[in-house]
Amino acid sequence: MHFASDNTSGVPDAILDALRAANTGFAMGYGADRHMDALRDRIRALFEAPAAEVFLVATGSAANALACASYCPPWGAIYCHKLAHIEVDECSAPEFFTGGAKLTHVDGQDGKIDVGALARVLAQSGKGVVHHVQPGMVSLTNLTECGTRYSVSEIAALADISHSHGLPVHLDGARFANALVAEGCSPAEMTWRAGVDVLCLGGTKNGLMGVEAVVFFDPAQAWEFQLRRKRGGHLPSKHRYLSAQMLAWLEEDLWLDLARHANTMAERLETGLTGHADIAYPRGGNMLFATWPRAGHERLQAAGAEYYLWPDHATWEDPDPIGARLVTSWSTTKDHVDRFLTTLAGQNALASGAALG
Amino acid sequence: MHFASDNTSGVPDAILDALRAANTGFAMGYGADRHMDALRDRIRALFEAPAAEVFLVATGSAANALACASYCPPWGAIYCHKLAHIEVDECSAPEFFTGGAKLTHVDGQDGKIDVGALARVLAQSGKGVVHHVQPGMVSLTNLTECGTRYSVSEIAALADISHSHGLPVHLDGARFANALVAEGCSPAEMTWRAGVDVLCLGGTKNGLMGVEAVVFFDPAQAWEFQLRRKRGGHLPSKHRYLSAQMLAWLEEDLWLDLARHANTMAERLETGLTGHADIAYPRGGNMLFATWPRAGHERLQAAGAEYYLWPDHATWEDPDPIGARLVTSWSTTKDHVDRFLTTLAGQNALASGAALG
Amino acid sequence: MHFASDNTSGVPDAILDALRAANTGFAMGYGADRHMDALRDRIRALFEAPAAEVFLVATGSAANALACASYCPPWGAIYCHKLAHIEVDECSAPEFFTGGAKLTHVDGQDGKIDVGALARVLAQSGKGVVHHVQPGMVSLTNLTECGTRYSVSEIAALADISHSHGLPVHLDGARFANALVAEGCSPAEMTWRAGVDVLCLGGTKNGLMGVEAVVFFDPAQAWEFQLRRKRGGHLPSKHRYLSAQMLAWLEEDLWLDLARHANTMAERLETGLTGHADIAYPRGGNMLFATWPRAGHERLQAAGAEYYLWPDHATWEDPDPIGARLVTSWSTTKDHVDRFLTTLAGQNALASGAALG
Amino acid sequence: MHFASDNTSGVPDAILDALRAANTGFAMGYGADRHMDALRDRIRALFEAPAAEVFLVATGSAANALACASYCPPWGAIYCHKLAHIEVDECSAPEFFTGGAKLTHVDGQDGKIDVGALARVLAQSGKGVVHHVQPGMVSLTNLTECGTRYSVSEIAALADISHSHGLPVHLDGARFANALVAEGCSPAEMTWRAGVDVLCLGGTKNGLMGVEAVVFFDPAQAWEFQLRRKRGGHLPSKHRYLSAQMLAWLEEDLWLDLARHANTMAERLETGLTGHADIAYPRGGNMLFATWPRAGHERLQAAGAEYYLWPDHATWEDPDPIGARLVTSWSTTKDHVDRFLTTLAGQNALASGAALG
Repeated sequence: MHFASDNTSGVPDAILDALRAANTGFAMGYGADRHMDALRDRIRALFEAPAAEVFLVATGSAANALACASYCPPWGAIYCHKLAHIEVDECSAPEFFTGGAKLTHVDGQDGKIDVGALARVLAQSGKGVVHHVQPGMVSLTNLTECGTRYSVSEIAALADISHSHGLPVHLDGARFANALVAEGCSPAEMTWRAGVDVLCLGGTKNGLMGVEAVVFFDPAQAWEFQLRRKRGGHLPSKHRYLSAQMLAWLEEDLWLDLARHANTMAERLETGLTGHADIAYPRGGNMLFATWPRAGHERLQAAGAEYYLWPDHATWEDPDPIGARLVTSWSTTKDHVDRFLTTLAGQNALASGAALG
Repeated sequence: MHFASDNTSGVPDAILDALRAANTGFAMGYGADRHMDALRDRIRALFEAPAAEVFLVATGSAANALACASYCPPWGAIYCHKLAHIEVDECSAPEFFTGGAKLTHVDGQDGKIDVGALARVLAQSGKGVVHHVQPGMVSLTNLTECGTRYSVSEIAALADISHSHGLPVHLDGARFANALVAEGCSPAEMTWRAGVDVLCLGGTKNGLMGVEAVVFFDPAQAWEFQLRRKRGGHLPSKHRYLSAQMLAWLEEDLWLDLARHANTMAERLETGLTGHADIAYPRGGNMLFATWPRAGHERLQAAGAEYYLWPDHATWEDPDPIGARLVTSWSTTKDHVDRFLTTLAGQNALASGAALG
Repeated sequence: MHFASDNTSGVPDAILDALRAANTGFAMGYGADRHMDALRDRIRALFEAPAAEVFLVATGSAANALACASYCPPWGAIYCHKLAHIEVDECSAPEFFTGGAKLTHVDGQDGKIDVGALARVLAQSGKGVVHHVQPGMVSLTNLTECGTRYSVSEIAALADISHSHGLPVHLDGARFANALVAEGCSPAEMTWRAGVDVLCLGGTKNGLMGVEAVVFFDPAQAWEFQLRRKRGGHLPSKHRYLSAQMLAWLEEDLWLDLARHANTMAERLETGLTGHADIAYPRGGNMLFATWPRAGHERLQAAGAEYYLWPDHATWEDPDPIGARLVTSWSTTKDHVDRFLTTLAGQNALASGAALG
Repeated sequence: MHFASDNTSGVPDAILDALRAANTGFAMGYGADRHMDALRDRIRALFEAPAAEVFLVATGSAANALACASYCPPWGAIYCHKLAHIEVDECSAPEFFTGGAKLTHVDGQDGKIDVGALARVLAQSGKGVVHHVQPGMVSLTNLTECGTRYSVSEIAALADISHSHGLPVHLDGARFANALVAEGCSPAEMTWRAGVDVLCLGGTKNGLMGVEAVVFFDPAQAWEFQLRRKRGGHLPSKHRYLSAQMLAWLEEDLWLDLARHANTMAERLETGLTGHADIAYPRGGNMLFATWPRAGHERLQAAGAEYYLWPDHATWEDPDPIGARLVTSWSTTKDHVDRFLTTLAGQNALASGAALG
C-alpha cells in the first residue's frame, strides 16, 4: 500500500532487459551512442517534430532548471503557479541555473495558471523598465502539482498570451505521459501545436530509473543547453544507459501503457474514496488529494500504508480531518488500492480480501 | 581495440544483477533507501572512517564541483594543476557551483602538483588582502590526468602544507581504485590518513553506469552539501539504483579486481609499446600517453582502433610522430591489447594471433 | 514642484563644503582614509554600538544586496513584503548577490509585514527538508515602500519571531532618518535594541550624492562582507569622498534636520490634500500615496509638476480618479507644496498664495 | 612624496566646481539627467563614434566586470594576461558578474599579451567541444599593470586575431588617458579603429572622485548592460554627480592635461632614477617599477615616502635590493619627485633642490 510517490516505484522488466542488451562492448560516451541516435529519431517521430533537439539528464530538477536557464536570463521573470515544482520543490535550482532569475507567481485554481491572471501579470510586467526584472518565460506543469490537468486548449490559450508578449513556454512534464493518456491527444497536440517551446519529458516517475528528456521544438537553444548541461555536471559519460532505457520505454508505447495503468489505479482509488473522503481537486491523472477522518489514517498507518500528509506543512497534530496526497504508479496494483480502501473504511480485511479476490 | 576512455566500457554482470535485485517493490527516494544505508556502512568500514558522510551523484563533474563548492567560497582560490580535470574538462563547472571561485594553477611535472610549488604559491596567496581571491582549498587528482600517480607520502606532504595554511584537501578520485591497487595501500592510507578531507570516489570509469560517491571524512559540510546537491539537480529520486550498484561494486572487492585488471592491461600495453613508441609519463595505473610514427596510426585507424590523439589539440595534420592517449578498463582484454600492438607494429595479424594464442 | 522622488534632490552646501575640505593632499584608498575612521566612530557613538562594523557603498541596491548576501546562503529564503524594494525595484540584485536565494513574500497591510503572517510562514518554512529553500533571513524596510512606518515595538515583535527561528534581521533604511525623526526614538532603539542585526543606513535620499552605510551590529560577517563588496565592484578606491560626505551629514545632526524638514513638507502636503484626494496609507514620513480626479492631474501636468503615477503599472489611460506617489525631500519648499496644492485644486495661484501667506 | 597609486590623489578644483554647478534644483535620476546627455554627446564626438553607447559606474572593477559579463557567457573564456587587473586585483569580480567564466592566461613580456601567444591559444581553444569552456572574449589593459603601453598597431594586431575567431575585444582603460597622450594618437585610433569593441574609460585614477565610463562602440549589448548594471547595484540614483564630473573632465581637454602631467612626472622620476635603480619595464605612461638598495628604501621610509613594494608579495624581509612600484598622478609635483630622488640618493635636500632648480 505505497502511495507516497510514483518515484518510489521500480522499473518494468523491459527496462532492465534494455539495460542488459545495451551492455555489450564499448560505446562512445556523452550522448554519442547509437541508442541516443535511435531515441532522437523516435521522439522526433512521436512528436511529429523532425527538427526537434533532444537531450537527456538524470533528474527532473535538472531538466527543468536547465531548460529554464536556456531561455530566461538572470534578470528575467519565470511566470509560474505558486505551487509549481520549480518554485516549491527544487531548493531554488532554477534560481541557481539561471543565475538569479525570479519566479513570479501567477494565480489560478487547482494548481493551474489562470488565463486572465497571466494576461494581467504580463500587462503589468515592467518590461523595459530597468529597475524591474524583465519578462523571461512562462512555465506550466502538466499534470500539475495538484494532480489536475491542463487541457490542450488551456495550454494553447496560455501559450498564445505568452507568445504575444514574446515569451517562450516551458512545460514541466514530469507526469506528461499521465496527462497525455488522460487527455487522449497526441504528443504534438499537447506540446508544440499548442505552443510549447520546450518540454521536459519525464521518464523517472513513469517507469525509468532516472531519465528525463529535454525536447527543444525550436533547436536554437540546443548548443547553449549542451554547455549548460555539461557545466551543470549533467552530461553522463556512459550515456547509453540513459538512452537505452528511454528508447525501450517509448517502443511499442510502453510509456503510455504504464501511464494508463497508473491513471486507472488512481481512478479506482478515487471511486473507492467517494463517500469516505473529501477529494480536493478534479483528478487529472494519477494523483489525488483527499481528506478523511483521523481514525481512518490511524488504521492505514497501523497497516503500513505509506503516503504524505497534505498540504506540505500538515502534521498528525492537525485537527480532524487530515489531508493526504495519494499517488499511483505503473506498479500499483488493484490489490494495493483495494486494501487501502478497505483499511481506511475499517472493513474486515479478511472479508474485504475475500470479496476482492 | 577500444582505448578511447575507461568510460566507454560497460558494466560487469554483477552490476546488472544488483540492479535487478534492487528492483523489487517500493523504495523511499532521495537517499532514504536501504541500499544506501548498507553502502554508507560499507564505505565507513572500508575507509575505517565511522563518522564519514557519504553521498551519491551520477557524474564525476557533479561530484567534484559540489565537493569544491562545499568548501570553497565564491571569492576563494582552488589550487590545482593546470591539467586537472576540474580545470580542463568540466566546462567551468567548479566556477558555476562555487559561484565564481578561481582555479589557480600550481606547477608540477607529470600532472602532479609539486610540493615546493604549492608552498611558494601559498606563501604568496594574498590572504587577508581584499583585492585578491582568498585561499580556498587544494584539489588533487589521483590518478592524475597524465596517468601518473601520487604516492601516499606525496599526498601527505601536499596535505600538510595545505592544512598548515588552513586549507582543506579535495581528492578527485575518478580513477581512485586504479591508484589504490597500484599503490598497494589501504583506502584510509590514501585518503584521510594522508590528510584528504573530501574524496570523490569514482565508480563510473571502473564498472558502474554512472555512480560517484562523495565521502566527507569531516562531516561538518554534510548538510550544506545536500542542499547544494539538491539545487544542483543531483539528488536522484530513485536513488536505490545508484546505491545498489555501488554496494555490489564494493562487495567482495569487485572494485579492486576491476581496477587491477585495467592496470594489468595497461601494463601489458606499456610493455608491448616499449621500443615502438615513446611513453610520455611514468604509468600510474590504467592510462598511457605515447607517441609513435604516423604509419602505425594509419594501420590502427584502418583496423578500427579507437583512441584520442594527444595532447588535446593534436590533429592528424601534426608532424610525425603523433601522440595518443590510451586508456584500459575492466573490460579490456588481452586480445584487445595484443591486436593493438601487432597492428601498430605492422605484424601479420594471423601470425601474431598465432603467436599470442 | 518636484515630487517624483527624494533622490531627484541635490545635496546641501554643507556636503559640498565637506568634499572640498576632504580634497587636500593624498589619502590612502579603499576605506583606509581618516574620514572613515572618524565616521566609524561617529556611527558607533550615535548607535551606542561600540563593536559595530561600518562599510560604505554608493547605492542602496548594493547596500541591501550585499547585506543580504552576507547572511543568506544561495539556498535560503529572504522573507520580505511583496512590495519591498529588494523584491520590486532592484532587478533581482538580491538573487544575484546571494547566488540565487529566494525572496519569499510575507503578507501585511500598508506595506508592513504582519507579525502573525510572519509567524505562520516561518512555522511552515520547510526547514530541514532538502527539497525546499531553507529559512535565511527577514528583511524589513522603514519607511516602507508605502510610506508607512514600523514602530519600534513592531520591529521588535518581528525580530523576536525571526530570532526565535534563528534568522537574522535586515533593515533596509533607505529612508531610515525619516522614520527615525517621525518615530521620535534613538538610532539604537530602532535598530539593534529592537533586534536589527544589519542596517542599511541610507544617505542618498536624504541629502548625499550617493552614500549608504551598512552597519553590522554583530561584526561576525564583516570580513565576508568586505570580500563581497570588493568582488561586487563596490569598494571605492577614492573612498574619502564617500566617508567625508557622510561624516558631515552626521555631524551636528544635519541628517535629522534634513529628514525632519522632508517630513514636515509631507505633512503640509497631506494636510492640503485632505478633502481633495484620497490618501492611501497612514503617512509615516516623507511619502504619500493619493488618488484624485484626472482634472487635477491635468492642471498639475500642465504646470510642470513631476511625480509618478501609482501603483507602478498605472497609466494616464486608467479610469478616473488616478493615483500618484508624492515624495518630499530636504530641498522641498513650502512654496513647492503650496503651488502643487493650489494647482491641483484649480485655485488662482495668486489668490491661494495670498491665502497661504 | 606619495607614489602609492594615482587613486590616492584628489580631484582638481574644476571637478569640485562642476559638482557645485550641477547641484541646483531637481534632476531625474538613473542617467536621465541633462549632464549625461551632454556627456554622451561629448564622448561620441571625441571618439568619432556617433552610435556609441555610454554608461557610467563608480569603480573600475564594476566597469570591467560588467563589460566582460555583457560579452562573455558563463561558460566562456576571457583571454587576458596573467597580471591583468581583472585577474589579480578584483577578487574574482569578473567570475562573479559573468556567472563563472574562466580567465585564461595568455603569455607576453612586460604585462602585454603577445600576438603569437594569443594566436596559439586561440588555435587550441577547444571551441565546439562541450567539455571545455568556449572562447569568449579578449581583454587588454592599456596602460598595462606593468606600466607598459600597447601601441595602436599592437592593439590592432591582437584585435585582428580576436575578431578572426569571432571574439570581441575589451580594453581596460583605467589609465587610458595616460596611454593616449603617451602614444600621441586619437581616442578613435586607440579604440574602435584598432578593433576595440568596448572600452572602460577610467576617470578615477586621473582626477575624478569615482567615475568610469563604459563605452560600447557596438551598441548591441547596451540594454543587457543596463540590466546587469542595475542588478549589480551600479546604477546611481543621483546620477548627475557622476556625469557632471566626467563632463567637466572632458571639456577643454582637462583629462589629457592631467594625464600628460602625470606622465611628465613619471618621466622626471625615471630620469632621476637612472643610475640609482634598475627600471623593470619600458615606461608607457605614469607608472614605474624599479629596484634599488635597501638603504635607499630606509631613507625614503624615514622621510615618509609612500609606495608599494613590488612584486605584490615582496616584503621588507626580502634580500637586497628591493623592488617598488611608483605611480605618479595629476597632483604629483616636481617637488615630490625631486625630494623622492634626493632622499633615495641620500643627497642633501637643499643642495639637490638647488641643482635641480
